[in-house]
Amino acid sequence: MCQPPAVALGVTLSVLAEAPDAAAALVVPSSPVGEHTDLGAVREFARHCDVVTFDHEHVPADVLATLQADGVTLHPSPSALVFAQDKLAMRRRLADIGVACPRWARVGHAGDLRAFGDAVGWPVVVKTPRGGYDGKGVRVVSSPEEVKDWLEASERDAVSGGPLADGLLAEERVDFVRELAVLVARSPSGQAATWPVVETVQADGVCTEVLAPAPGLDPGVAATVTEAALRIAGELGVTGVMAVELFEVSHPRTGAPAYVVNELAMRPHNSGHWTIDGSVTSQFENHLRAVLDLPLGDTSPTAPWTVMANVLGGDYPELYPAYRHIMARDPGVKIHLYGKGVRPGRKIGHVNVSGSDLADLRARAGHAADYLRGVVTE
Amino acid sequence: MCQPPAVALGVTLSVLAEAPDAAAALVVPSSPVGEHTDLGAVREFARHCDVVTFDHEHVPADVLATLQADGVTLHPSPSALVFAQDKLAMRRRLADIGVACPRWARVGHAGDLRAFGDAVGWPVVVKTPRGGYDGKGVRVVSSPEEVKDWLEASERDAVSGGPLADGLLAEERVDFVRELAVLVARSPSGQAATWPVVETVQADGVCTEVLAPAPGLDPGVAATVTEAALRIAGELGVTGVMAVELFEVSHPRTGAPAYVVNELAMRPHNSGHWTIDGSVTSQFENHLRAVLDLPLGDTSPTAPWTVMANVLGGDYPELYPAYRHIMARDPGVKIHLYGKGVRPGRKIGHVNVSGSDLADLRARAGHAADYLRGVVTE
Repeated sequence: MCQPPAVALGVTLSVLAEAPDAAAALVVPSSPVGEHTDLGAVREFARHCDVVTFDHEHVPADVLATLQADGVTLHPSPSALVFAQDKLAMRRRLADIGVACPRWARVGHAGDLRAFGDAVGWPVVVKTPRGGYDGKGVRVVSSPEEVKDWLEASERDAVSGGPLADGLLAEERVDFVRELAVLVARSPSGQAATWPVVETVQADGVCTEVLAPAPGLDPGVAATVTEAALRIAGELGVTGVMAVELFEVSHPRTGAPAYVVNELAMRPHNSGHWTIDGSVTSQFENHLRAVLDLPLGDTSPTAPWTVMANVLGGDYPELYPAYRHIMARDPGVKIHLYGKGVRPGRKIGHVNVSGSDLADLRARAGHAADYLRGVVTE
Repeated sequence: MCQPPAVALGVTLSVLAEAPDAAAALVVPSSPVGEHTDLGAVREFARHCDVVTFDHEHVPADVLATLQADGVTLHPSPSALVFAQDKLAMRRRLADIGVACPRWARVGHAGDLRAFGDAVGWPVVVKTPRGGYDGKGVRVVSSPEEVKDWLEASERDAVSGGPLADGLLAEERVDFVRELAVLVARSPSGQAATWPVVETVQADGVCTEVLAPAPGLDPGVAATVTEAALRIAGELGVTGVMAVELFEVSHPRTGAPAYVVNELAMRPHNSGHWTIDGSVTSQFENHLRAVLDLPLGDTSPTAPWTVMANVLGGDYPELYPAYRHIMARDPGVKIHLYGKGVRPGRKIGHVNVSGSDLADLRARAGHAADYLRGVVTE
């Protein structure tokens, strides 16, 4: 999704693709094939780039360190990226800079977890600090028994230096009103821009719908979370686009609207896909502008509301008849498909609809996504 | 510029590129190199395509006929495309279907031209029926002497079967109020959509600025020219996007606003570049949808006004400092560069700006284009 703005800006992309038919390789002429974990492949790839950036956070630290030693320009830098790679590092750093988070603890063994759960109340949320996404690496548990496998792996990794060597992250289960996200783009020069705060609707740990801007959001909370996102980006030295995922909560004493930070992502993010059709400058364009240290574009919305609905793979592999149907039924729906094979539950695309009637937009976006998934017919 | 919507729609493009570093080849993975006049190259290219379309009208008739005989799906079809390739054929056909045109005549020799000029008044406009663009192949003349070379070539071609075999096109010089354009997308199924009528501002035969919609356009004229464009598309069997370029005139007797058709282009057209940032569905997306016989997208504007200014090559080959400056000065300007080398006067990109204050938008778009060209500094 960086390719369309790259075409307009006259920026030439190159993608290290996991396979010759990877989604990005289908649309970017220079797409050598290689694994992000393969040091040799990544070094060879980076040698031809002015700037290297990422579409996920899973590039290993030793690969990043080698690129940095090679003199490759990385945005975000490894020292910033670690806070999106490692949830324990993120919690520690956000605590240091005073950003509101759920209560949390590092747990190395069952006793730590029991003490934490007894203190904050069960059930608690346990996360593997590294490697999780879309609900993977996250469990809501009522006793340490339910993460016995992870605790054992962590004890082994503490000896062998594996991925769970630093332990697990335990967090209180937040009684939230809804989930919000705020997107910030920040350049190496320190210029930063944010888009309106959005509401993200999740089902089974997967985002299904984004409402931009978040309906009825208290203006004070909007200002506070936007300021928090800008402060996080600045304090952590983020370059490129970062998404801050938040829970909107009621203040435990006053009942006033407040927030806690849930996750950070340092890349264009699903919560910002609405910006492709709903903002003067999309998150993908501003990500490119930011990592190239070009001045950032206007992030104003182009309509009162934009609704994004994710298209998840359904039971039939053949999208085409549904695709034609959706186009014919609603000429205003903007369809974005990723060129990925259809597998049940996999994010294979999204739709955006902009306008002035939020309920109508939600119905239209939801119908289009459901029809493409095959869960409604007509 | 078809690549960004192709990415979103999940449509795989392939381009027959005139060179490995042609603008389109830089952004489309499948870009075999070949000439559009080379029958073998075009046939081999077309063999791998579901649908073949065009980004200019200059593919020779015998190449098109061979593709059609091969069973290749061509949109627009050769029988429609001829009216954009051959201005004499276009004038004859528009006269047949009753669309308002300037007075015109086919001229085979100096006597024909003298009779026409004496009848409609000198100077007159003489055009080579084929091969012209951006003012090339057009002369405003006060006597047949001024196109003596063309008339002689035409007499030779009448014997040898060259490009001017059918003679020249002479047209009255229209005393127009301004130039307008209307864009229509039409699919093989016959679905058609139009965008708002725009004003095009020209200098030395080259479009410099497009105002969308045309400011202060009489609603009756807007409706009439839109209906005319739809009728032309239907009568000529156009598939894909067609631009109808018009002169707005004062009716010679009543003084009421009226129009005559100047030119037809059967492809996404410079007068529609504003749609990339100023319309729910761009001309490039609807061109793809049309030639693939997919339902067309909503052509509504997303802002009260959008201004497009062409970026012409200036005297310095290095665009980058100006590009940074424009981005920093005006975050709302949408820059589109074509990856072409800078040559004085060559169209190398355009900028779009949308909003509600037309004078402000014209100033901003004009400044950005002039700064990129190097004719203003600050």
